[in-house]
Amino acid sequence: MASTTTTVAGYLFARLHQLGVRSVYGVPGDYNLTLLDYLEPAGLHWAGNCNELNAGYAADGYSRVKGIGALITTFGVGELSAINAIAGAYAEKASVVHIVGTPSRASQDSHALIHHTLNDGDYRRFAQMHAHVTTAQVNLTDPRTCSAQIDFALEQCLLQSRPVYIEVPADMVPIPIASARLDTDISIDHFAQPLNATAALALVLDRMYSCKSPMILVDGEIRAFGAIDELNQLVRLTDWPTWTTTFGKGLIDENLQNNLGIYKGKISQQHVKEYVQSCDLILSFGPHHSDSNTYQYSNIPNPAVTISFGATEIQSDATIIRDLPMKPFLNQLLTNLEISKLVSVSPPHSVEGNVVDSVDSPGDSETVTHCHFWKTMSSFLRPGDIVLGETGTSAHGSRELVLPQTARYFTAVTWLSIGYMLPAALGASMAQRELHEENSHQPDQSRTLLFVGDGSLQVSVQALSDVIRQKVDMIVFVINNDGYTIERCIHGRNRSYNDVAPWRYLLAPAFFGVDEEGEYRAHTYSVATWAELKNVLENDELKRGKGLHMVEVFMSKEDAPPTLLALLEKQKEAEKERDSKVVE
Amino acid sequence: MASTTTTVAGYLFARLHQLGVRSVYGVPGDYNLTLLDYLEPAGLHWAGNCNELNAGYAADGYSRVKGIGALITTFGVGELSAINAIAGAYAEKASVVHIVGTPSRASQDSHALIHHTLNDGDYRRFAQMHAHVTTAQVNLTDPRTCSAQIDFALEQCLLQSRPVYIEVPADMVPIPIASARLDTDISIDHFAQPLNATAALALVLDRMYSCKSPMILVDGEIRAFGAIDELNQLVRLTDWPTWTTTFGKGLIDENLQNNLGIYKGKISQQHVKEYVQSCDLILSFGPHHSDSNTYQYSNIPNPAVTISFGATEIQSDATIIRDLPMKPFLNQLLTNLEISKLVSVSPPHSVEGNVVDSVDSPGDSETVTHCHFWKTMSSFLRPGDIVLGETGTSAHGSRELVLPQTARYFTAVTWLSIGYMLPAALGASMAQRELHEENSHQPDQSRTLLFVGDGSLQVSVQALSDVIRQKVDMIVFVINNDGYTIERCIHGRNRSYNDVAPWRYLLAPAFFGVDEEGEYRAHTYSVATWAELKNVLENDELKRGKGLHMVEVFMSKEDAPPTLLALLEKQKEAEKERDSKVVE
Repeated sequence: MASTTTTVAGYLFARLHQLGVRSVYGVPGDYNLTLLDYLEPAGLHWAGNCNELNAGYAADGYSRVKGIGALITTFGVGELSAINAIAGAYAEKASVVHIVGTPSRASQDSHALIHHTLNDGDYRRFAQMHAHVTTAQVNLTDPRTCSAQIDFALEQCLLQSRPVYIEVPADMVPIPIASARLDTDISIDHFAQPLNATAALALVLDRMYSCKSPMILVDGEIRAFGAIDELNQLVRLTDWPTWTTTFGKGLIDENLQNNLGIYKGKISQQHVKEYVQSCDLILSFGPHHSDSNTYQYSNIPNPAVTISFGATEIQSDATIIRDLPMKPFLNQLLTNLEISKLVSVSPPHSVEGNVVDSVDSPGDSETVTHCHFWKTMSSFLRPGDIVLGETGTSAHGSRELVLPQTARYFTAVTWLSIGYMLPAALGASMAQRELHEENSHQPDQSRTLLFVGDGSLQVSVQALSDVIRQKVDMIVFVINNDGYTIERCIHGRNRSYNDVAPWRYLLAPAFFGVDEEGEYRAHTYSVATWAELKNVLENDELKRGKGLHMVEVFMSKEDAPPTLLALLEKQKEAEKERDSKVVE
Repeated sequence: MASTTTTVAGYLFARLHQLGVRSVYGVPGDYNLTLLDYLEPAGLHWAGNCNELNAGYAADGYSRVKGIGALITTFGVGELSAINAIAGAYAEKASVVHIVGTPSRASQDSHALIHHTLNDGDYRRFAQMHAHVTTAQVNLTDPRTCSAQIDFALEQCLLQSRPVYIEVPADMVPIPIASARLDTDISIDHFAQPLNATAALALVLDRMYSCKSPMILVDGEIRAFGAIDELNQLVRLTDWPTWTTTFGKGLIDENLQNNLGIYKGKISQQHVKEYVQSCDLILSFGPHHSDSNTYQYSNIPNPAVTISFGATEIQSDATIIRDLPMKPFLNQLLTNLEISKLVSVSPPHSVEGNVVDSVDSPGDSETVTHCHFWKTMSSFLRPGDIVLGETGTSAHGSRELVLPQTARYFTAVTWLSIGYMLPAALGASMAQRELHEENSHQPDQSRTLLFVGDGSLQVSVQALSDVIRQKVDMIVFVINNDGYTIERCIHGRNRSYNDVAPWRYLLAPAFFGVDEEGEYRAHTYSVATWAELKNVLENDELKRGKGLHMVEVFMSKEDAPPTLLALLEKQKEAEKERDSKVVE
């Protein structure tokens, strides 16, 4: 039993703790300072960031590993600096709790002209802006309803797997409220009962038992709806040919023989396309159909043969059955599935690999190229690693990595905000470390590997300071290709607007204050040739991955992963075709 | 005569050029790349930034010197990263044109699920968010109206001195439109005719001629309404005791004997308070009554004796006369003013100085303290300098600087977003450089001096890379006091959430890639004692101020400018009093 009263701040933070949050990101500001006093007593670690955008990204990365993340900003200036990160969490379904310390009710009610406002007495604008990019918004102005408001917001955050917005006026922070509700956990299991399971099960099982050429396509929203384990079981049990999308990569064990990698639609190998086109049943899980996640809509399965499993509904052609939360419904499906009734299928002959398989191995003194770099990196990976590929060539290249068991992978999906991945790696790594600490019987051998281009790194570079301050273990591969190479591929190949300033990236650990005498160390490496890359990848300290490792890999400014070039080629063809139609 | 047709992009950029814009800030993204192709042909320099928030801040700083500034971002991810800067420009009245490259009309009209959206087919959210923080919004989707829309937005930008939002769908960029409108300049002079000048002049002149104890109070919005020259003339002609607010500091020549510095309300010296209280006429120009600009509302003049000059109206007690644009109305006032009819007033005996005048000078080996640092810095300043004091102790301290003639001063006013001032200094310095280039008969002796704390610098540090890339001359005094000292003064003096990571700030020029062999050089200095400070301030290279100079000044983490401490003391007293009233 909790004590009978707590405070508004104490209640909020107790709830976050119950949900598994241990670290909270953000930046202090004069409207949130007293709120921050309540973190430590609630068992929460304040992981203060250099700026709010990075705090938002870190909370997002943390959420994608732990299921929920939180940040605290100050009214106006702080919250708006973070809003791009909140929008990204909304677009890609990450449960992020954005807590904003706001001016006292006295200030707000009197429409006082105070700092961090637009000097017009209107205190509601920033909340209205957040309403566009959050799934629930509550303003804790009445002690009688605070606990219910907090619970509602957090439930929505979990159920929708999207950010929520909680305003805490400064004078509300210490107000006593009853703590009785804390005795009942918030859990989406309360909402777990599928309503229409019988009809849905009949539909799905009938199709599964009667098909001849099935496949499974796993997209990234299964993470948002907590169905990773169930999907892995289904893929294993059926042994059916299974592909993921980019968003889904890393959610299904890549050591399973029937996990055939990313289905790349129009740039897939011919035999893969042919198999997909021949399917009479495609089970599509957690679809997320943005252009960037679907190879320009070309890996979206044919609706005529597809059963699509969404957040709380399944769809088969024109039939939609609702109120079937994904995770419990998949559990029912697994329970009812009779494996003996399933067709046995041999997969198309090879895993969907890099389309440039045939290129010769490079010589030791040659410059590192995308075409071989990513294949080389696969052998560097270890079970349990978290691998992150930032928007740009790193995103396209890192898709080609073959992940060891229990490795996780995060990359650009839809929001594609450059600068996201470094702070997200901070959050993901801290979440992973906490999970290991909480389950201390597992030795923590996992590493965090970030692949990031120079242009992206410049956006949010001070997150390296946060990494150092939180003593996070991370290996950062900085792809230094002298600018925004992915933009060069799209337009303006040699235009100066695609250049970036030539930083000395390997000075970062010294600049951001790594203590050379301390326990937490930084290591830097410079790589321009294949021989240097091979040499660096043999380094034992790097392989262990403790402390901060920065590997600067120089590549040609016009080099890019072959899959990216192939995709852009197809896109240009499609645009030409469309334009010629418009002219007609 | 311009040629008879141009393009949508060409028209927009021609207009910006006509208004004096020469450098445009921003970050490239795939929805704005083709737009960027049109900058150079229009005579505009692309000053690409490391991230969009810094681009927004730079455009704001540029605008405050040149009257208008612009940035270009990409849809969603880019524009939302900049939105905090846009809000700041709205709050503090800076004319910033936020141009966003958006997806093609084909994508938007079909509600396609594409990257940089929330994956829901809704393309209007980001514009709706911007509507809260911009004064006009146009979306260039129809070639027939683009030129009128652009003109409308830019006129509003100038008239309101607030940011505007212009969306350019990618396919609209090259569309031909008539250029005829370009032959007529956009100018707020078109709107310059005061409608009710006769009655207003009579009211003001009558009061000016009949008063016995007048004063002038100049606030910062006179910059927004272009009335700096007129106000200087009025202050000079009347010779009346004149104070500014913090926002107004630097707008009135501080060498005028009757310019008595900042009027600090409740923490003013006693004889100053007494004089202000005795006034029977206060002419208040461009009032901006936020708590942070008014010493908690204590320097707001008594309405019973005040004539307040706003953007387009004057107010005397209950009388408001509208439609009197400030600049032309002041010109009429100056034309009609008979100096001989004005009372001659001797000002209160001394300039409002630092309240710690009586403290002894420090010894050479003593640590640098705020109390003396700012007085020392006054003697370092030169005519024409741009001085910027970032939110925090630097803002409060730098208010005490006495500015030489034609020096400009920018500091925290109302938005107070830490991280703003470094990129704003970039923009302000570039604008100043352009003004000198355009009026090449004046030798450019002016320097840019930025005072910034460690916590603020960490927010936006990559703007130093932009400074280096644009070869901007700047002297940066980094006040290293080991954390958010202003927050420590407010709450949580020794709480770890007010700490920041200990960077090695003087490595910044090397990290951000200053070419040690190049023409543009960086110089670094470390200062812990008075002797070191004196020594550094004698350095000829520093005094010249060419290239990048970084002076790290170590101060105690609990030291703060005496005026800040006095203000917070008064604020706490007021809060206690208010709380005791609430209890009653």
